[in-house]
Amino acid sequence: FKIFSLNSNQALTEEIVRHLGCELGRSSVKRFSDGEIQISIEESVRGCEVYVVQSTSFPGNENIMELLIMVDALKRASAKRINVVMPYYGYARQDRKARSREPITAKLIANLLETAGVTRVITMDLHAPQIQGFFDMPVDQLQGVPILSEYFADKNLEDVVVVAPDNGGVVRARKMAEALNAPIAFIDKRRPQPNVAEVMNIVGEFKGRNAIIIDDLIDTAGTITLAANALIENGAKAVYACCTHPVLSGPAISRIEGSPIKELVITNSIQLPEDKLSDKITTLSIAPLVADAI
Amino acid sequence: FKIFSLNSNQALTEEIVRHLGCELGRSSVKRFSDGEIQISIEESVRGCEVYVVQSTSFPGNENIMELLIMVDALKRASAKRINVVMPYYGYARQDRKARSREPITAKLIANLLETAGVTRVITMDLHAPQIQGFFDMPVDQLQGVPILSEYFADKNLEDVVVVAPDNGGVVRARKMAEALNAPIAFIDKRRPQPNVAEVMNIVGEFKGRNAIIIDDLIDTAGTITLAANALIENGAKAVYACCTHPVLSGPAISRIEGSPIKELVITNSIQLPEDKLSDKITTLSIAPLVADAI
Ligand SMILES: Nc1ncnc2c1ncn2[C@@H]1O[C@H](COP(=O)(O)O)[C@@H](O)[C@H]1O
Ligand SMILES: Nc1ncnc2c1ncn2[C@@H]1O[C@H](COP(=O)(O)O)[C@@H](O)[C@H]1O
Repeated sequence: FKIFSLNSNQALTEEIVRHLGCELGRSSVKRFSDGEIQISIEESVRGCEVYVVQSTSFPGNENIMELLIMVDALKRASAKRINVVMPYYGYARQDRKARSREPITAKLIANLLETAGVTRVITMDLHAPQIQGFFDMPVDQLQGVPILSEYFADKNLEDVVVVAPDNGGVVRARKMAEALNAPIAFIDKRRPQPNVAEVMNIVGEFKGRNAIIIDDLIDTAGTITLAANALIENGAKAVYACCTHPVLSGPAISRIEGSPIKELVITNSIQLPEDKLSDKITTLSIAPLVADAI
Repeated sequence: FKIFSLNSNQALTEEIVRHLGCELGRSSVKRFSDGEIQISIEESVRGCEVYVVQSTSFPGNENIMELLIMVDALKRASAKRINVVMPYYGYARQDRKARSREPITAKLIANLLETAGVTRVITMDLHAPQIQGFFDMPVDQLQGVPILSEYFADKNLEDVVVVAPDNGGVVRARKMAEALNAPIAFIDKRRPQPNVAEVMNIVGEFKGRNAIIIDDLIDTAGTITLAANALIENGAKAVYACCTHPVLSGPAISRIEGSPIKELVITNSIQLPEDKLSDKITTLSIAPLVADAI
């Protein structure tokens, strides 16, 4: 098999390749003067099992097009099977019509990948597990919880409570709580009356404890920093946060910096640019996990 | 029927709508904080014949994704037929494998449009007419030559010669020459020996004449400004240039400004940003032509 990198996760791809002891497939991914993507594969892939590593993180639309064009080139170069390693599946939040006359972009992307010629997808912590069913091909879903849990287990924090920042995250928090042998809590936001501000009601025991908030992705960090404030104000000892996918757009970094969160633990499913690195952030690598899945 | 606009050609869409005396379909096309496209259609399209106007010009990848997501939303909102008006078809130059292991992105885009749910395409001066065959749906191709020829006819230039900037453009130049009742010439670039600079050999009568160079698209303007220099140096009276698609990337504007080209005539198949407008440029509208095709 051969592994090819695109622009979203080059460092991760190199790490995966080192783990597997193989070489990185040679290809050229550039731009024409007008911004169009120019790809060429610089070694034979005829009859090969190929892997392309690309998260559809920011800039998501560019990264999707790069991936589709790469897959087209591999298909036309007679690759036997085209596996896409997409640690972060962009547009996953657009997985249903929340209002009428909206697109279901997560399904559209699945169809586009299939049309381009992808035969298998390896991804990680999909925002909704139903997205697997959007594909008519094998989809392997890796899990971030074991990596994140192991990190916190090694820290030997006492009196831990794992916190889900909303009702939807309880299943994930439960898994981490089991791994850490800790209780769980969750935050139940409600609006007591229309036009009255939401109340953060924390369900579960957390006073005097080290709270670890876990989510699949952190985007603008609004939810997680509000949760951290509520926990500290109501008597938690300290607040840690973790997620698989550090989308971290807009005000995310400054919100985290200004919040009581002591440490934010993320994975490299999305490669962060320099200006998004903060002293509070610890990055764990998913390379061994991905290498195992290949 | 209903006409919807996206971000590439809003002014053109408004003009088309005025020509047809109908109203612009209401929709919202925005970005989430992380750059993902957020679309919603704000009126019923159930059972409707809909038209979406979008050139896949710069930023091409963004514009393609916007179009695909819009089409997905329209399809899921039960539109009867989804017609795409794509005056400029981006990636058209990647219409064959010029080298091995390259993608054929022009075909990929055709497949993506089909997958999203497009049922008919109206486009203009495809870089290669073969691209029509990349689709399994009706493709109407509008022509820029009549609009450009009419403009030059109205100028009443004397002793005109229509010049194709390369061998591939002779058919197009021939059409304009017929419309203007003028002779044609073409530029035959050749390299006399390996590692010797190319020679611009102008085939045809052009001395003392007003030369009009015509091309389908002008991108970095390298070809056209070299052609203009060669014409002037060898005795043409004046040089005009025209094209359907003003891609005008990179050094294009400064090259044109610094060239002997007296006037560049373009269409609004691609909407140019303010900083690409030059005193030398005249823009003709394709709105009446598109309105006729709808
Ligand atoms: N990139 C995005 N950023 C923020 N919100 C999004 C994004 N994509 C989709 N959404 C919205 O997020 C909601 C679903 O999020 P969730 O409830 O977490 O599954 C839907 O209302 C979507 O319209
Ligand atoms: N956006 C682009 N800008 C410049 N060259 C391109 C672009 N897309 C494709 N090409 C190249 O242009 C050549 C085809 O152009 P043509 O000979 O004019 O049909 C091929 O070698 C392509 O690799």
